[in-house]
Amino acid sequence: MTALHVDKYATSPHYSGSGSIRCGSGRRSLTVDATFDLRSEVRLVDGVFDPATPDLAEVYRPAGRCVAIVDATVDRLHGRALRAYFAAHDIPLETMVCRALEEDKNLDAVCRMAGFLGSDGCDLARDEPVLVVGGGVLTDTAGLACALLNRRTPYVMIGTSVVSAVDAGPSPRTCVNGTLMKNALGAYHPPVLTLVDRALFATLAPEHLRHGMAEIVKMAAVDDEELFGRLQRHGRALLDTRFATTGGGPELAAVADEVLFRSLYAYMRHEGTNMFETRQDRPHAYGHTWSTKFEPVAGLLHGHAVAVEMALTATLATLVGWLDTDGRDALLALCRDLGLAVHHPVIEDLELMKVAQETVRRKRGGSALWAVAPRGGLGRCDYLAEVEDSLLAEAVDRHRARCREFPDGGGGLGMYLRDARWT
Amino acid sequence: MTALHVDKYATSPHYSGSGSIRCGSGRRSLTVDATFDLRSEVRLVDGVFDPATPDLAEVYRPAGRCVAIVDATVDRLHGRALRAYFAAHDIPLETMVCRALEEDKNLDAVCRMAGFLGSDGCDLARDEPVLVVGGGVLTDTAGLACALLNRRTPYVMIGTSVVSAVDAGPSPRTCVNGTLMKNALGAYHPPVLTLVDRALFATLAPEHLRHGMAEIVKMAAVDDEELFGRLQRHGRALLDTRFATTGGGPELAAVADEVLFRSLYAYMRHEGTNMFETRQDRPHAYGHTWSTKFEPVAGLLHGHAVAVEMALTATLATLVGWLDTDGRDALLALCRDLGLAVHHPVIEDLELMKVAQETVRRKRGGSALWAVAPRGGLGRCDYLAEVEDSLLAEAVDRHRARCREFPDGGGGLGMYLRDARWT
Ligand SMILES: NC(=O)c1ccc[n+]([C@@H]2O[C@H](COP(=O)([O-])OP(=O)(O)OC[C@H]3O[C@@H](n4cnc5c(N)ncnc54)[C@H](O)[C@@H]3O)[C@@H](O)[C@H]2O)c1
Ligand SMILES: NC(=O)c1ccc[n+]([C@@H]2O[C@H](COP(=O)([O-])OP(=O)(O)OC[C@H]3O[C@@H](n4cnc5c(N)ncnc54)[C@H](O)[C@@H]3O)[C@@H](O)[C@H]2O)c1
Repeated sequence: MTALHVDKYATSPHYSGSGSIRCGSGRRSLTVDATFDLRSEVRLVDGVFDPATPDLAEVYRPAGRCVAIVDATVDRLHGRALRAYFAAHDIPLETMVCRALEEDKNLDAVCRMAGFLGSDGCDLARDEPVLVVGGGVLTDTAGLACALLNRRTPYVMIGTSVVSAVDAGPSPRTCVNGTLMKNALGAYHPPVLTLVDRALFATLAPEHLRHGMAEIVKMAAVDDEELFGRLQRHGRALLDTRFATTGGGPELAAVADEVLFRSLYAYMRHEGTNMFETRQDRPHAYGHTWSTKFEPVAGLLHGHAVAVEMALTATLATLVGWLDTDGRDALLALCRDLGLAVHHPVIEDLELMKVAQETVRRKRGGSALWAVAPRGGLGRCDYLAEVEDSLLAEAVDRHRARCREFPDGGGGLGMYLRDARWT
Repeated sequence: MTALHVDKYATSPHYSGSGSIRCGSGRRSLTVDATFDLRSEVRLVDGVFDPATPDLAEVYRPAGRCVAIVDATVDRLHGRALRAYFAAHDIPLETMVCRALEEDKNLDAVCRMAGFLGSDGCDLARDEPVLVVGGGVLTDTAGLACALLNRRTPYVMIGTSVVSAVDAGPSPRTCVNGTLMKNALGAYHPPVLTLVDRALFATLAPEHLRHGMAEIVKMAAVDDEELFGRLQRHGRALLDTRFATTGGGPELAAVADEVLFRSLYAYMRHEGTNMFETRQDRPHAYGHTWSTKFEPVAGLLHGHAVAVEMALTATLATLVGWLDTDGRDALLALCRDLGLAVHHPVIEDLELMKVAQETVRRKRGGSALWAVAPRGGLGRCDYLAEVEDSLLAEAVDRHRARCREFPDGGGGLGMYLRDARWT
C-alpha cells in the first residue's frame, strides 16, 4: 500500500485534493473547480491469516492496533485464524462481528457500525484504516459506514466470497438498499487495499460460490475473451473444487489464480478508472439493467439474476446484429455448465421490464439507457442507447423459445435467495 | 452554472473523473490512481424568488420540473414566493417540507428525504439537481440525502440563514450528528450552485442572525483584515437591519453585499480548493476545535460556541507570541459589539477540553491538532500542532481573568440553543 500524499497537513496519506477559484465580474459570483485523488490497490495473497504472510501486519503494526468489522458467518469459520494472526504479531485487535444478510443492508446497520468505529466505540483516527472481512453484503454496508464516518475513513478489504473478492470488494460502490430500489443509497468509497485469498472460498456454500461465478462470467463475456475460454475449460472444475482449495492440483491452482487476476484486472481497468461512475460506458453493468427490478421481485440470488439478464441481452444482441447465435449459445452453455440460470419467467413480465428500464435510465443520468451487450463476439461489448418496447418483447420471446430447448427451461441450481438462507 | 463535462456517456454534466491502472510484477497486484472533479458556483442574487430573476428558471426549465426540499419555517415565511416563482415560469414544482431543528440532524431524516427524492417519490434522474432551501440544519441533512441518493445527486442551494448563506450552504461538508459527536457522519458534497439572497434574512430571528455573524467574524479574523475592519464599522448596523433588509440605505446595502462577498470568497478560496478536506491547514476551523465538545455540553448556539473558542484562542495566541493583546481585544470588542459570547464557564472544565482535543486530533487524521489561531495580527493565521495541558490551562485562566472585566463576564445575547427554540 503506497501512500499517495505526504504532507505535514495531510489528513490522510491515502487521499489528496486540490482546487482553483475564479471570481466572476462585479464581485457577484465565484466558481471553484475541485479535484480529489485516491489510490486503491488489489493483491492476490496466499494464506492471508498465516502469520508468515506480512500484508496485514505491514498495515496495522504502524497503526498500533487493528479495528475490524467481520461478517458473522466468516467469523465463525475464520475468526480464530484472524485472531491468531494478530496475536502472533502482537497487534491488538478490536472486532465488531455483524450478521450480514441481504435484509441487513440498511442504514441502521451502517449506523451501528459507524457507532462502533466512531466516538461511540473505537474512536478511530481519520487516517486509520478499518479492516473489513466478509461477503458482498458486509462490504457494501461496512464500506458505507467507513465512507460516512468523518466523511471518509480508509479501509482494507478482505473479500471472503467470490462476489466480494472480485467485484463488491475492490468496488468503490458502497451502499444499502432503499425501500423500493436495491443499492439506492451509498457512496463511492473504494478500499485502499483489497486482499484476495481464495483459500477462504473453501468454506463457501455452493450456491454462493456459483452465484459469484456469474460476475466472473460477466467480465469474461464483455471484456476478456481469453478469460471466457478459461472458464469454458476450467470453470466447472473451479466450482467443484472451490477454486482449487478442496481439490485439484497445482495446475488448477494456477488456473484459479489466473482467473481471479484476469477478473480483477477487467474490473479495475474499467471500474477503477471510472471510480466515481462519472461515465456510463461500463462493461460491468452487463446484466445489471433489467435485473435491478426482476431480481428482488423473483427473489433471485444476485448472480442468477445477472446471468438471466446476460443471457437475455445476448439474445437481444443477436437481433440487432451485434452477436451471432453461436456466441449467444456459448454464453448459455457456459452459464448452464456452472449451474447458473439463463431464463426465468419473471422476464416475461414486460411491464416490470419497462419500469426497470425507466428507473435505470434515470439512475444512469437520463441521457440514455446504455444497456451493455456483447458486440463483435464475446469478450467485447457496446452500449444500447435505447431498447424499444417491440425489440425487448421480441428478445424476450426469442429467448424464451431458445430456453425451452433446455429440459429445465433454463433455471439455475439453488437460484433463489431462500435456497441460500441456511448459511 | 457551467457544465464541467460534456460527453455522450457522462453521468452528469457536473462531475467528471479519470484514472490509470498499473500491474505489479507476477500478475499478483494492481494499483489504480483515480481522480474526481467537480465544479461549484456561488452567486449573490437580489430577489431570488422574483419572477424577473432568471437564475432558478435557467436551471429548472431544461430539467422540466423542480424537486425541492424546504425548511418548514422558511416554507411558512417564503414558500408562497417560491411557489409563485415557479408558477410564473410554468415549471412544475414538487416540494418536501421538513422540520429542521438540530435534533432533526439524524439519518432517519436523511432517509425520509432520500425516499422522497428517490424511487419512493420523485424518482429523480441522477443529473437532475435538487433544490435545497433552508438554514444550516437543512443544508447539512438534505445535502447528505443528495450525496447518498444514487451515490451523488447534484443540488442547488439557497441558504436562507446567515450561516447557510456564507458557510453551511456552499460547504461540501454535509452531515448528521452521531450519538456522541456532532456532525460525525457525512459526505463531501457541495452544491453545484449556491444562491445567496440577503433579502431572505429579513425574517430571521435575531439570535440566528447573530450567531451567523460569528462565522463571518471568523473568516475576517483569520483571513481578511479588511473584512474585519468593515465589521468593526458596520457589523452592528448589519445586525440591526438584518443585512440592510429592514432598514439602512443603499450604502449599507452595498456594505452588506461586500461583507457577504468577502466572506464567501474567504470561504471558497480555502474550503472550496480543499473540497474534500484532504488538508488540515484550514483557516475555517478557527473556533472549531474545543467547541465541538463544549458546544453541546453547554447547549450553546453554534455561533456563540465558535465565538467563545475564537476569543479563547486569541488569548492563547497572545501567550505564544502570535498576537498582541490589542489584536485580541479588538476581536473581543467586535464579538461583544455583535452580542456574541466571548467566555463561558464550560471552558474551565479542563478535562472536557482535553477530551475535545484528543477527539479532534483523531478527527483531523492524528498527525497533530492543527488548532487555528491568528498570527501576526488579525486577518492572518497559523496552526498549533499541539497545545500542552499547561498552556491550555494558562490560556483558560488568563482568558477568564480578562473576561471578568466585562460586567456580564463575557456572555452572549440569546446564546443558548433553548433561547432560539421558539422559531
Ligand atoms: N458494491 C458492488 O459493487 C457490488 C457488486 C456485486 C455485488 N454486490 C452486492 O453483494 C451482495 C452479494 O455478495 P455475496 O455473494 O458475497 O453475498 P453475501 O455477503 O450475502 O455472502 C453470501 C453468504 O456467504 C457467507 N460467506 C462469506 N464469505 C464466506 C466464506 N469465506 N465462507 C463461508 N461463508 C461465507 C456470508 O456470510 C453470507 O451468508 C449483494 O448484496 C450485492 O448487491 C455489490
Ligand atoms: N456544513 C457546514 O460546513 C456547516 C457550517 C456551519 C454550520 N453548520 C451547521 O449549521 C447548523 C446551524 O445553521 P443555522 O444557523 O442556519 O441553523 P438552523 O438551520 O437551525 O436555522 C436556524 C433557524 O432559522 C430558521 N430559518 C432559516 N432561514 C430563515 C429565514 N430566512 N427566516 C426565518 N427563519 C429562518 C430555521 O428554520 C431554524 O429554525 C448547525 O447544525 C451547524 O452544525 C454546518
